[in-house]
Amino acid sequence: MGRIICAGLGPGDPDLMSVKSDRAIRAAGHIAYFRKAGRAGQARRIVEGMIAPGAVEYPMEYPVTTEIPFDSPEYNRLLAAFYDDWAARLATLAETEEIVVLCEGDPFFYGSFMHLYIRLKDRVRIDVIPGITGMTGCWNVTGQPITWGDDVLSVLMGTLPEDELIAHASGSDALVIMKTGRNLPKVKRALAAAGRLGEAWLVERGTMPGQRIERLAQVEDHDCPYFAIVLVHGEGRRPVAAEAAE
Amino acid sequence: MGRIICAGLGPGDPDLMSVKSDRAIRAAGHIAYFRKAGRAGQARRIVEGMIAPGAVEYPMEYPVTTEIPFDSPEYNRLLAAFYDDWAARLATLAETEEIVVLCEGDPFFYGSFMHLYIRLKDRVRIDVIPGITGMTGCWNVTGQPITWGDDVLSVLMGTLPEDELIAHASGSDALVIMKTGRNLPKVKRALAAAGRLGEAWLVERGTMPGQRIERLAQVEDHDCPYFAIVLVHGEGRRPVAAEAAE
Repeated sequence: MGRIICAGLGPGDPDLMSVKSDRAIRAAGHIAYFRKAGRAGQARRIVEGMIAPGAVEYPMEYPVTTEIPFDSPEYNRLLAAFYDDWAARLATLAETEEIVVLCEGDPFFYGSFMHLYIRLKDRVRIDVIPGITGMTGCWNVTGQPITWGDDVLSVLMGTLPEDELIAHASGSDALVIMKTGRNLPKVKRALAAAGRLGEAWLVERGTMPGQRIERLAQVEDHDCPYFAIVLVHGEGRRPVAAEAAE
Repeated sequence: MGRIICAGLGPGDPDLMSVKSDRAIRAAGHIAYFRKAGRAGQARRIVEGMIAPGAVEYPMEYPVTTEIPFDSPEYNRLLAAFYDDWAARLATLAETEEIVVLCEGDPFFYGSFMHLYIRLKDRVRIDVIPGITGMTGCWNVTGQPITWGDDVLSVLMGTLPEDELIAHASGSDALVIMKTGRNLPKVKRALAAAGRLGEAWLVERGTMPGQRIERLAQVEDHDCPYFAIVLVHGEGRRPVAAEAAE
């Protein structure tokens, strides 16, 4: 019996993946990863130079990305068929082989791998290796703590309705906003409404070559890729109860 | 000129620290870490067997932990003097040496290191190596994704007032609650009021020996150490806008 190992890759710098993922990837005979058709793919790029000679690669190419609306029935049907197909192929392979599936960041934190995981977890053995999340890599490169004391941190998607973004931005000390891209004007309006725009940063390609860190207020509305992350740092809310650190 | 390297250790399993932290720790000639007086210390325990022969160790022992109230002026005064003292000692040492400071989880996410960092960052060179947060280790060992789709994740401290805990628990899809311990009865009441107690898990020592995963509703009020983490998984909120994955 083989198995599937999902290796969290961390935020992008290959030195920031775990010792365990590093070891699994270097030892792998079969390696699968998602990518956009015709692209090298970010996950594959992170492990460049680590893959053993003779290892078999399985690029899992999305059937569609931005061509049709993300929330359309057709999009969902195509993606579901794609995940069904790859789950079946990996399950068959895992009858005899060990396959490493690459996953950027942490596999259980907004990862694409979960679509395979829910289809495979009752059929084959799957071991998941955690990774440093992309947001952790991004707040580290800003050079200041994202949270301390009793700060509340909220992680939001730029796709949320503007009133929800405002409510969370008003009620939390620290913020991480993902899926920005063309949602940036809405995100900026929501942060301004909550009085947080002046403290916000945009981080793109955190820990990777071409890393960019800018004050969000200075970023043009059109100048934000989908994977850039917006951060607002907490200021260390004081504890309210009398329990000491362990 | 020397420098200070703050090495994030990750959630506890030594194989889950980054390749970069692993390398820095094994090469270190000077290693500092926080611990409670008279204890081995969790950070030191994680790196057992990795420290080079002849390396000098600097256990930074907290002057007080649970003996006096966490929110008292005396507690703050003692802790501030402790951090001032160690910042001065490390700054002097860093004039000529490279010192690795160990930090559980990720140094910029609720880490004790930030108290040294804010005192040292304008005096000596400091490089911070991110780590997998403790919460990431904990949600991974539950074997299910913490967030997917458009889920909102909120990270809360059990020390917060009950009405704030209820508001965030009601308004978020996924939850992480830290600093539980003797706040557990309040945390359970707040989750019950928000209708989330039935979905909540308690994870203690995630990724480490003695790991414990239990449904929170079944945990006795007194049976929860300070460092245990409460988790509520998101269920994958559907996107509301029409932007596709990159």
